[in-house]
Amino acid sequence: MPFTPTELAHPIVQAPMGGGASTPALAAAVSDAGGLGFLGAGYLAVEAVRADVEALRALTRRPFGVNLFAPPQPVPDPEAVQRYARALGDRYGGPLGEPRHDDDGWEAKLALVAELRVPIVSFTFGCPPADVVARLHDAGAAVWATVTTPLEARIAERAGADALVVQGAEAGGHRATFDDTAPTDLGLLAALQLIAAVSRLPLVATGGLATGRSIAAVLVAGAVAAQLGTAFMLCPEAATSEPHRRALAGDGETALTRAFTGRTGRGIVNRFQRDHSASAPLGYPDVHHITAPLRKAARERGDSDGFHLWAGQAHPLAEPVPAAELVRRLAGEARAALRDAAAG
Amino acid sequence: MPFTPTELAHPIVQAPMGGGASTPALAAAVSDAGGLGFLGAGYLAVEAVRADVEALRALTRRPFGVNLFAPPQPVPDPEAVQRYARALGDRYGGPLGEPRHDDDGWEAKLALVAELRVPIVSFTFGCPPADVVARLHDAGAAVWATVTTPLEARIAERAGADALVVQGAEAGGHRATFDDTAPTDLGLLAALQLIAAVSRLPLVATGGLATGRSIAAVLVAGAVAAQLGTAFMLCPEAATSEPHRRALAGDGETALTRAFTGRTGRGIVNRFQRDHSASAPLGYPDVHHITAPLRKAARERGDSDGFHLWAGQAHPLAEPVPAAELVRRLAGEARAALRDAAAG
Repeated sequence: MPFTPTELAHPIVQAPMGGGASTPALAAAVSDAGGLGFLGAGYLAVEAVRADVEALRALTRRPFGVNLFAPPQPVPDPEAVQRYARALGDRYGGPLGEPRHDDDGWEAKLALVAELRVPIVSFTFGCPPADVVARLHDAGAAVWATVTTPLEARIAERAGADALVVQGAEAGGHRATFDDTAPTDLGLLAALQLIAAVSRLPLVATGGLATGRSIAAVLVAGAVAAQLGTAFMLCPEAATSEPHRRALAGDGETALTRAFTGRTGRGIVNRFQRDHSASAPLGYPDVHHITAPLRKAARERGDSDGFHLWAGQAHPLAEPVPAAELVRRLAGEARAALRDAAAG
Repeated sequence: MPFTPTELAHPIVQAPMGGGASTPALAAAVSDAGGLGFLGAGYLAVEAVRADVEALRALTRRPFGVNLFAPPQPVPDPEAVQRYARALGDRYGGPLGEPRHDDDGWEAKLALVAELRVPIVSFTFGCPPADVVARLHDAGAAVWATVTTPLEARIAERAGADALVVQGAEAGGHRATFDDTAPTDLGLLAALQLIAAVSRLPLVATGGLATGRSIAAVLVAGAVAAQLGTAFMLCPEAATSEPHRRALAGDGETALTRAFTGRTGRGIVNRFQRDHSASAPLGYPDVHHITAPLRKAARERGDSDGFHLWAGQAHPLAEPVPAAELVRRLAGEARAALRDAAAG
């Protein structure tokens, strides 16, 4: 039987953060504490994903998940992407990357997670077709699809997904939207109500959850577990950069933007985001590749105005504590909130 | 002692819907059923508000609330408002109203709710200063401020508010934002967590709540009650127009727009909203007055593409049942959800 989230000792999933804070050490600490750790396979070479899974398995024998990026949509207006690249070049000089419309090693990563018999494989940016889901089932995996609307939930259920990660617009980083041409802005509680009305699959709630009370709230709303990303980004086990940590600890506002990658994501508003959000085109991952060297250079010189400060809306509540302690504390607070509410 | 939301038999507040669905019959049904009914004073002549309060008191002896619009911010670019009016005139011919920057009878309505000893007076679009709050306290009223951010919560607490209505971006109709120049998009659960971290006032949660489970969720998240607007709009006691009822019963997407009133509000996307959201300026209530005759004409001819279809994100879950039945059903479902979650 594939893993189901109701098997967890604590109903807490650590969100995969592709290209970001996820590490084998973070995932292992969360899984060992009774939650569910995740690795993000996005942006990594397939052999780096293999190395991460092996490192994680050396640290824990508990179940864990790996998240894959579904292949990208076509770029509707390549000329707009070129114009954006020229404007960034004029403004910053460089370094800029070449636009590339790659699929993040889709087939190779699918084969890898099947070969390694990864217990849970989750997807973002789309749900794979039924034959791919069946292939992962044959390899013993539970397949989770990240969805943001009732329509996406129906598509994932038809494809054979075992659980839905319901992502509210509060979430940090890229929205999981299948079609980023017109992302919706459904908040988490609204999305949970609307999706519970059309699907009987187990729901894992994510987006802006930072406290035990909020975890308890989504359980009461019908989710079987809560997935938290930003809340883990200040943990010592996370690979979050120092300038990013400082921004997360502040109370800067977040907003949605395509400025960094050509795909809608939520970050703490900084100069780059403010200056380029209005003109940034739809074009993922092309824009990601164009801006990547610029963002890397900014991060390395500690310039938090020059790269994506992905963060969920509740980021000011994130705490710099070890991941295992955080899982246990949040789970305890959630249980207390449920007890209090039932008694009150 | 002024009324506190913990006195309610059922933790359900019916949202005031200024210019919309609120009626004395709706508020009375909700209060009589053990929830808290509200009248919207916005857009009404002061004597019409008096008549509504008297009609409500003839229907119920239970506590109720009246909501007032705080005075509007200045219009940053009056020329942009004129350009918008000209563009609408060119497109539709007419009828268009004259732009007016009125304060919705602020002083007269404050005096009225004090004179009538309205038990709860809530505010949107801003929080009155401490002397106004004190005047209402002297008249026996509890003062509730609608807030969307931790900063607004701090301002309202300093002014002496007795409770905070925390409005998430999921909510239908106008956002309560004090400064609409840069409204934030905090989802309800994120806003509750962030505001609970800075204020000890009782919180009433609102925005996209349509089910007993979602009411239970916000109680677990720390609210003392849930405020629902859209969920009551299909009740027979509501004054919702027929074309608006049809749109609410469908599953059309909602979005934020300034197209109808010059102030950010959430409605089901229709032709008017699609065509004018990008060009609509900040300018409330001036734009409201300009478009009012156009919207009234569209509503009267049953054209749901020509007026504001205010709706929260969970509108497809609204049900056409009498308000008292709805209150009892939602309260029962909320209690069951709390029991189940505490047991599970």
